Amino acid sequence: MRIAELSRRSGVPVPTIKYYLREGLLPAGELTSRNQARYGEDHVRRLRLVRAMVEVGGLSIAAVREVLGALDDPEGSMHKALGTVEAAVTPEFPVQSREDEVAREQAAEFVARQGYDCPPESPTFQALVGVLAIAREMGHVRFADQLDNYARVCGPLAEQDMDYVLGAGAREEVLEGVVVGTVLGDTTLAIVRRMARHTTSLDRMG
Amino acid sequence: MRIAELSRRSGVPVPTIKYYLREGLLPAGELTSRNQARYGEDHVRRLRLVRAMVEVGGLSIAAVREVLGALDDPEGSMHKALGTVEAAVTPEFPVQSREDEVAREQAAEFVARQGYDCPPESPTFQALVGVLAIAREMGHVRFADQLDNYARVCGPLAEQDMDYVLGAGAREEVLEGVVVGTVLGDTTLAIVRRMARHTTSLDRMG
Repeated sequence: MRIAELSRRSGVPVPTIKYYLREGLLPAGELTSRNQARYGEDHVRRLRLVRAMVEVGGLSIAAVREVLGALDDPEGSMHKALGTVEAAVTPEFPVQSREDEVAREQAAEFVARQGYDCPPESPTFQALVGVLAIAREMGHVRFADQLDNYARVCGPLAEQDMDYVLGAGAREEVLEGVVVGTVLGDTTLAIVRRMARHTTSLDRMG
Repeated sequence: MRIAELSRRSGVPVPTIKYYLREGLLPAGELTSRNQARYGEDHVRRLRLVRAMVEVGGLSIAAVREVLGALDDPEGSMHKALGTVEAAVTPEFPVQSREDEVAREQAAEFVARQGYDCPPESPTFQALVGVLAIAREMGHVRFADQLDNYARVCGPLAEQDMDYVLGAGAREEVLEGVVVGTVLGDTTLAIVRRMARHTTSLDRMG
């Protein structure tokens, strides 16, 4: 297909496609003349993935390049590519880690208790330390007690997420599902949580 | 207490306290001389609430003023103040509502099915329409099927949230708990969800 059809199929404007080609996020098409190239289904899939990362995930071009590197590495496992995507999305958490020994211990004990694979140097662990440190600074010492409640609901959600993305087929589609599921999923969970809470609040304090 | 102690007790720097006084977010202290005022426990509580809304919730000064207005309204119920806080926090969702009739119907059916108190003009409803519209634009038509899974876990979470904040005591402390619980809680839930998923992914694809 020509670039105009690639644009229609992927929902990405032609100038943006040209930008991605220049940045190496999309492999060049097959040249059919000096100024025209032909693109295939691989390009459509790749573009959808890039679009998901940039538009939904808010990833920088550099971060997208890193994820694509993990994806295209013939030695790389799907789990590793998934880890790269999640690491790229994780700095989005609006908290920084803080110097707080108690918060660090609370996070470490929680991770050990749940058997999570989450080393202390990972961005996810650091983000948790940051949240717990802020809660403590604000005097909410009981906040850490809620972690196990969250874990109880996140286990089944993780299994559902996995079923959802593994149902997608090709590697690129699975990864795209992870990006969309992670970013849209977090927002959706926050929205539904608010709807449920508003309704519960009305029942109990209305 | 003097302003210096108020600062120590609340964790808010003196210049920021003076700014809040000028903006009317904090009632004036009792004047003890031309240049000195005395502050009480009410000021500590109010300052902690304002700090939670500004630093954790990312609310604008105008939004904080609106929440405080609802809180100080002698006719206002706690549920109403809670709704004002949540509306003030909700625009934080990184999605805008879009013109998408199918997404709007999916959201309306979901809300009716769950019995949520969430009118179509509310920011929460609009945010859900936005998420569903993006998912559809990206070709993830199955995404809406996950909503009921989210709702299943959010019911018990909402009850726990309510127990947590209602255990806090005074109105200002309850509201502060809502702000901290909403903002830190959403982030924490996203973090724990990622830890659980990473671990599940390792089990299933490692």
